[in-house]
Amino acid sequence: MPDKQTNAHGREAHHPVHAVFLERWSPRAFTAEAIPEATLATILEAGRWAPSSYNAQPWRFVYARRGTPSWERLLGLLAPFNQVWCRKAATLIFVFSKTTFRAPGKDEDAPSRSHSFDAGAAWANVALQATLLGWHAHAMLGFDHERALSELNVGSNFRAEAAIAIGRRGEKTLLDEALAAREAPSGRLPLSEIAVEGAFPAPE
Amino acid sequence: MPDKQTNAHGREAHHPVHAVFLERWSPRAFTAEAIPEATLATILEAGRWAPSSYNAQPWRFVYARRGTPSWERLLGLLAPFNQVWCRKAATLIFVFSKTTFRAPGKDEDAPSRSHSFDAGAAWANVALQATLLGWHAHAMLGFDHERALSELNVGSNFRAEAAIAIGRRGEKTLLDEALAAREAPSGRLPLSEIAVEGAFPAPE
Repeated sequence: MPDKQTNAHGREAHHPVHAVFLERWSPRAFTAEAIPEATLATILEAGRWAPSSYNAQPWRFVYARRGTPSWERLLGLLAPFNQVWCRKAATLIFVFSKTTFRAPGKDEDAPSRSHSFDAGAAWANVALQATLLGWHAHAMLGFDHERALSELNVGSNFRAEAAIAIGRRGEKTLLDEALAAREAPSGRLPLSEIAVEGAFPAPE
Repeated sequence: MPDKQTNAHGREAHHPVHAVFLERWSPRAFTAEAIPEATLATILEAGRWAPSSYNAQPWRFVYARRGTPSWERLLGLLAPFNQVWCRKAATLIFVFSKTTFRAPGKDEDAPSRSHSFDAGAAWANVALQATLLGWHAHAMLGFDHERALSELNVGSNFRAEAAIAIGRRGEKTLLDEALAAREAPSGRLPLSEIAVEGAFPAPE
């Protein structure tokens, strides 16, 4: 029997991972507490240090804190469904990735093979640093990707990857009934389904 | 002036991130120390708990530890350049992502928009958990992506994302001269170049 580790949310790890990986989850109920600029800077800084192929760092972040002049513009890019609960988030961060890349020694750009993968690593760093500081981050695809690229002046060689809401988590009674019913940390597939030694079973 | 934080590698964070984000880097010099199965399981478990769109968990890992029957097969998928230094890694992990996705309430699969981004988040979790346990992880694109998919029996609706070498870091004198010269933690673009408030400057 593997050792089990249960955290405060009832999530169960079968191997003793650092608590931050279980503590990180994606709520929608936020208290509307404001996030200090310095805290947001630390969260973005963690994203900055993510690994990437050739250290190309293809991730870009456009952010606004609630109550600042840019807040409504960023909020307005979200799908209406997401605008409802994101109104109480402390900050929104749109993540883009640069789809082209100049390899060392080349004199022109070529398509990047890993820009989304690399940007995903930066998102994980952001989410984990937020968690370590007592905040929660929730990434979503439900926004207008084309408008986000054009209205935020992101170049044509970028891809919209995700929008992230970060806030101080509140009681689920802050949400309407349908969302409140879904407000719980998610489980995971068994490790044996996603990680195999040597190879997956040969097809029959 | 922003506060600065310098870690043992000379990397400088301009905002006080958790030490793990600076301690994580991608060396090539490994000591050939073996990794216990339980340690590898904990590292993969961290990947398991990564966030993903609709919690679809599109990441898949195929791994082998050095000295086990599958080791040479996985090593043989790497580009010759990478085989040289990876021979002393403790384990290799190939990361794939599922490119299709069945949305809730749908009865057929559709293309996933975020499979690579999500798999990148899982890779970050893996790298950070390895770092927290005193190991180092180095991801690479230099391997035969088609052969990896076919020889490891990954389904046709998967994409090869990266190969990861994990090992106990050794002195750079373990490497040949050319690689030893490159064996150092990388820097990063200034935060102001990758993260902006509100929008990027309008094109002229």
